[in-house]
Amino acid sequence: MPKIRAGIINVTGYIGAELARILCQHPQVELVTVTGRSAAGQKLGDVFPSFARTKYTIEAELDSETDIAFSAMPHKSSAEVILPLLKQGIKVVDASADFRLKNADEYPKWYGFTHPSPELLREAVFGLPELHGSEIASASLIANPGCYSTGAILALAPIVREGLIAPDIVVDSKSGVSGAGRTLGLTTHYSEVNENICAYSLGGHRHLPEMEQELKTLNPTFSPSITFVPHLVPMTRGILSTCYARLRDDKLLKDAKAEKRLSQIYQEFYKHAPFVQITTKPPHTKHVWGTNFCLIYPTVDLKTGRLIVISCLDNLVKGGAGQAVQNMNLMFNLPETTGLEALAIHP
Amino acid sequence: MPKIRAGIINVTGYIGAELARILCQHPQVELVTVTGRSAAGQKLGDVFPSFARTKYTIEAELDSETDIAFSAMPHKSSAEVILPLLKQGIKVVDASADFRLKNADEYPKWYGFTHPSPELLREAVFGLPELHGSEIASASLIANPGCYSTGAILALAPIVREGLIAPDIVVDSKSGVSGAGRTLGLTTHYSEVNENICAYSLGGHRHLPEMEQELKTLNPTFSPSITFVPHLVPMTRGILSTCYARLRDDKLLKDAKAEKRLSQIYQEFYKHAPFVQITTKPPHTKHVWGTNFCLIYPTVDLKTGRLIVISCLDNLVKGGAGQAVQNMNLMFNLPETTGLEALAIHP
Amino acid sequence: MPKIRAGIINVTGYIGAELARILCQHPQVELVTVTGRSAAGQKLGDVFPSFARTKYTIEAELDSETDIAFSAMPHKSSAEVILPLLKQGIKVVDASADFRLKNADEYPKWYGFTHPSPELLREAVFGLPELHGSEIASASLIANPGCYSTGAILALAPIVREGLIAPDIVVDSKSGVSGAGRTLGLTTHYSEVNENICAYSLGGHRHLPEMEQELKTLNPTFSPSITFVPHLVPMTRGILSTCYARLRDDKLLKDAKAEKRLSQIYQEFYKHAPFVQITTKPPHTKHVWGTNFCLIYPTVDLKTGRLIVISCLDNLVKGGAGQAVQNMNLMFNLPETTGLEALAIHP
Amino acid sequence: MPKIRAGIINVTGYIGAELARILCQHPQVELVTVTGRSAAGQKLGDVFPSFARTKYTIEAELDSETDIAFSAMPHKSSAEVILPLLKQGIKVVDASADFRLKNADEYPKWYGFTHPSPELLREAVFGLPELHGSEIASASLIANPGCYSTGAILALAPIVREGLIAPDIVVDSKSGVSGAGRTLGLTTHYSEVNENICAYSLGGHRHLPEMEQELKTLNPTFSPSITFVPHLVPMTRGILSTCYARLRDDKLLKDAKAEKRLSQIYQEFYKHAPFVQITTKPPHTKHVWGTNFCLIYPTVDLKTGRLIVISCLDNLVKGGAGQAVQNMNLMFNLPETTGLEALAIHP
Repeated sequence: MPKIRAGIINVTGYIGAELARILCQHPQVELVTVTGRSAAGQKLGDVFPSFARTKYTIEAELDSETDIAFSAMPHKSSAEVILPLLKQGIKVVDASADFRLKNADEYPKWYGFTHPSPELLREAVFGLPELHGSEIASASLIANPGCYSTGAILALAPIVREGLIAPDIVVDSKSGVSGAGRTLGLTTHYSEVNENICAYSLGGHRHLPEMEQELKTLNPTFSPSITFVPHLVPMTRGILSTCYARLRDDKLLKDAKAEKRLSQIYQEFYKHAPFVQITTKPPHTKHVWGTNFCLIYPTVDLKTGRLIVISCLDNLVKGGAGQAVQNMNLMFNLPETTGLEALAIHP
Repeated sequence: MPKIRAGIINVTGYIGAELARILCQHPQVELVTVTGRSAAGQKLGDVFPSFARTKYTIEAELDSETDIAFSAMPHKSSAEVILPLLKQGIKVVDASADFRLKNADEYPKWYGFTHPSPELLREAVFGLPELHGSEIASASLIANPGCYSTGAILALAPIVREGLIAPDIVVDSKSGVSGAGRTLGLTTHYSEVNENICAYSLGGHRHLPEMEQELKTLNPTFSPSITFVPHLVPMTRGILSTCYARLRDDKLLKDAKAEKRLSQIYQEFYKHAPFVQITTKPPHTKHVWGTNFCLIYPTVDLKTGRLIVISCLDNLVKGGAGQAVQNMNLMFNLPETTGLEALAIHP
Repeated sequence: MPKIRAGIINVTGYIGAELARILCQHPQVELVTVTGRSAAGQKLGDVFPSFARTKYTIEAELDSETDIAFSAMPHKSSAEVILPLLKQGIKVVDASADFRLKNADEYPKWYGFTHPSPELLREAVFGLPELHGSEIASASLIANPGCYSTGAILALAPIVREGLIAPDIVVDSKSGVSGAGRTLGLTTHYSEVNENICAYSLGGHRHLPEMEQELKTLNPTFSPSITFVPHLVPMTRGILSTCYARLRDDKLLKDAKAEKRLSQIYQEFYKHAPFVQITTKPPHTKHVWGTNFCLIYPTVDLKTGRLIVISCLDNLVKGGAGQAVQNMNLMFNLPETTGLEALAIHP
Repeated sequence: MPKIRAGIINVTGYIGAELARILCQHPQVELVTVTGRSAAGQKLGDVFPSFARTKYTIEAELDSETDIAFSAMPHKSSAEVILPLLKQGIKVVDASADFRLKNADEYPKWYGFTHPSPELLREAVFGLPELHGSEIASASLIANPGCYSTGAILALAPIVREGLIAPDIVVDSKSGVSGAGRTLGLTTHYSEVNENICAYSLGGHRHLPEMEQELKTLNPTFSPSITFVPHLVPMTRGILSTCYARLRDDKLLKDAKAEKRLSQIYQEFYKHAPFVQITTKPPHTKHVWGTNFCLIYPTVDLKTGRLIVISCLDNLVKGGAGQAVQNMNLMFNLPETTGLEALAIHP
């Protein structure tokens, strides 16, 4: 079988570089081009020394003989870059938010721009393989989910589909700093971030509409009312999301066996998902460092009857580049885990 | 005015050492004795080099001419050490949990021992000066609150007293590692903690009954149902607590002015509290590093009508040693802030 | 005694803010003005929330009724700002490098500009109180030393003055990230710095000529040949310098008593220096966190007869703002330690 | 070709676990047994959750059908465990120090025990493939080098063999905390290590005799006088070693071309070494995070004529488990890089 010819648009951010790391080690892929406007002409290894032993030079434009392009452009610019590629018949996985929301009206509200091709929003598939595997397999345009969305949706999907919880949901997420990207700012300045934790985006984070959209899709009778508060934690990689919801009384008895039944529901829901693992203890972000896994720990606070579900993942892998490659695997009929099997590096 | 003669029992843990740091710089205190069983005979500066320029030697026993003793013993041992001191007329601030809970039945349940002197539980005052200032002033035994409890109670007190929220409360707390003390363990081993975040004590953390007790006391008609999940964050000091509750509709309209009214309620409640500051932006733990301040940011998630209150403090100061000294100041009719005015060291 | 009226020029960097922290808590100082061009009109507490409880507003210009001004301007700009102040009779402590080097020819070479007032270079005093205490007391212009220079010079001064070592010296320094200031850059971007160590400025760091100048001044027969390599360490504050030199055989026998004699030489040299402490174990930067102390550990590698001297300090305090205030104390005949006595906050 | 049957003795430390991570992903290896006395019977995934998806159970004893055993036992115990294996014809890579030193007299001096089988010291090969590749290929017992030794020897080998430097050498190394292993102690306690740097083992570190032995072996006319000072840095993985030596005047002119000639010498020396990369800028430990690479940056301080060589590596990979597997590859005639090609994970 010939290798898939892949290109990365805007390799100079952290998601772009992580795509390069995974793709250039993927056994079924030939990474053909990596692009980056401001850095065009430089060696990839000069921008990111961990690539010093690879031969890539950053190009201005994608090679035309590309089977699949991964866009790591910022939102708005990404859609502009992607449209002509689709017309050329190149499959696209878009790491930006530009095709994640089905309702074009959400873009002015959350992202401050009018969507340039609302008709494509329907065609695009939300690239969460655990929920949309078969659609992904036949899609030409994948909207790769946000890092927070991935953790929160995977944590909540089984109980939302089963109708086990009331609509009031709190998602309290804690993210490492790489989620803020490689762009400089005081909020990512070492001396400000180190030895500090804070909440941000209290007025509404852009990953919230993705969570709402996907949970509603799972259970059309369910209208979630989600309060989502992200926090910035002094570490580079990892997102831990602690989700709280009330159990609907008739559905799951609040007794000592609740946790076991809950675990079975999750095990069943994810039985075909190679990258989701249901744990029996609270998971650590370090357990998934550098991997494409999402660990989920569902439990019940017996004293209050409240459900707590904790998920964790590596924001640049399962929350970004790894999931994009998982989507590619499905789009090209490869085993879902190809090129993504590495164990976490610990400690 | 003669200086207050103070002693620290068990100076060799982090709370003990922090008490020593604050007390030996307190203008109205003469730190007379620091004790520590295993380290008796050693210089304090040999155990903690930051005290190299002080003259303290760790003793086996407290000096009898002590006006006030601070116990930094572990729970259970603390009560045993304190009882004879009280009989000698020495005032005591107990940093352990041994006198925090009014109901003796809670001790077997949460701490695994039968309380040795339940009659003292009523006499002891829960040492949160913002709630119990006048009782503290006349007390001989202060139960210094837990670090998590301090942050959560201060965050919730105004709206609980005003009856603004429904009883369903989520407290999601994130703590630095020094809260786990100086005792060695894999969960405080650098290579395991660094670049990691996790939740713990999902089955019920010991600071929960303190939160429930104090919130009920503030509003006897209120029966809080609190889910409390602490998390361990890779930093040394600081606790950030993100508290979620539903507003009772009739009390605070969910409109654009809600946040302002909320802020006024908090400002009013804490108008005499020199160490509580109501902020207008999400606070950072780094803003209180090394200080006795507690920052509180109350806000409303207008989309869901849910209240979010974020508090932060330094777990070893306002969450421990600083609050103990604040209590001492009140007990000896000193200005509450004496010896505790230092600004945060930043960055 | 009336308080000293002090002003800070360019309070918005880390040295400026640290000066503000120390000065506004100094018992003999009234901090009158803090300036900052781009932030003029903002409250200091809005730029640095740790000052939220102070009343300072950032001004465009210094108050004319100032006794002493601290300049935290970048080099070159600092000299321009200082010259008119000196003419008005305002004493100045300059935290920049603009008056550190006695030889005007060094400025084009190391800093890329021609010095605007070479005649002032002779008048300015290099503000290392342990070496130049009496000159500082009568100076109107103090050149506050570089953070690396302070640690290296204090480590080497006693043995250079005594002529104990050969001229070949290696200074291997490790600094926290705050030394790079508040200006943004990839080298201070959290995700790049965290979990990383690297050397930099291999071609020659600007603090090297300060070290050479001061060591030559101590011993005019000594022509040091210093290799200085600074390293960036993933922590916010602290510099540790490990200095290596060969003992001159006739001066200090390479036997088991060498270390004791060495320690005595250091003790003697620094017997009047309240902020230098000679240790008997390798010091940790954490032992001086937030303080004005410099710890020095001199030892001999008996196997090779090589001297190793390790010093550590807090780069923003003894390596910057604290030393500036120590200089001010001397200039105004205050006890050297006034306002600088705080113990390290640990852990 | 049948897979190599490998076993790990004492998998429960960090080197043991890292061996497991690499070996269970190695395409030519079947990891047959992992042992650990205290943890025998537990699943490997229960001790290290990153192995949750593997099937290993920790055994008490090695499987007898083992082709190669990796010992991650502490020194002294390792020799005891290894001797019977060698008699059974099992090849051994020993990660301890028990067979690193050729001279049995060094063991009482540096390790405090009399070597149980001095005759094996000659037979054992020091497992630094860049120096001893052909001997390793035919060895049955490999002494895997220390982490510090690997970095320092690789940094110095080319210029020592060429006789370019005088014998006075300073090696100033900075290590992450995982080098201290998984055993608990105050020096690896998070709150003590975080935001701190210190030197240790000033009296002589055990990796020093390895460095001396190997550099002497490279050039029998060279008697190095090495001062080696290791430092502990607040990060998990990585060692950076900054090596200083004086150039012998006649060998390499101290002019602007010196650096280029130096680089050529290093390029030439390591032209067959797939894991050594000569850089043209100071390397960062983060560039080799999780990889088996050693980056080396040789440069000249033109002002003093002193040579500076900086090397960096991941202490658990090239400084431990990765190098052990590299040795195994050579012992079994596999390409040296098999199973070790992964790129660094960045950031």
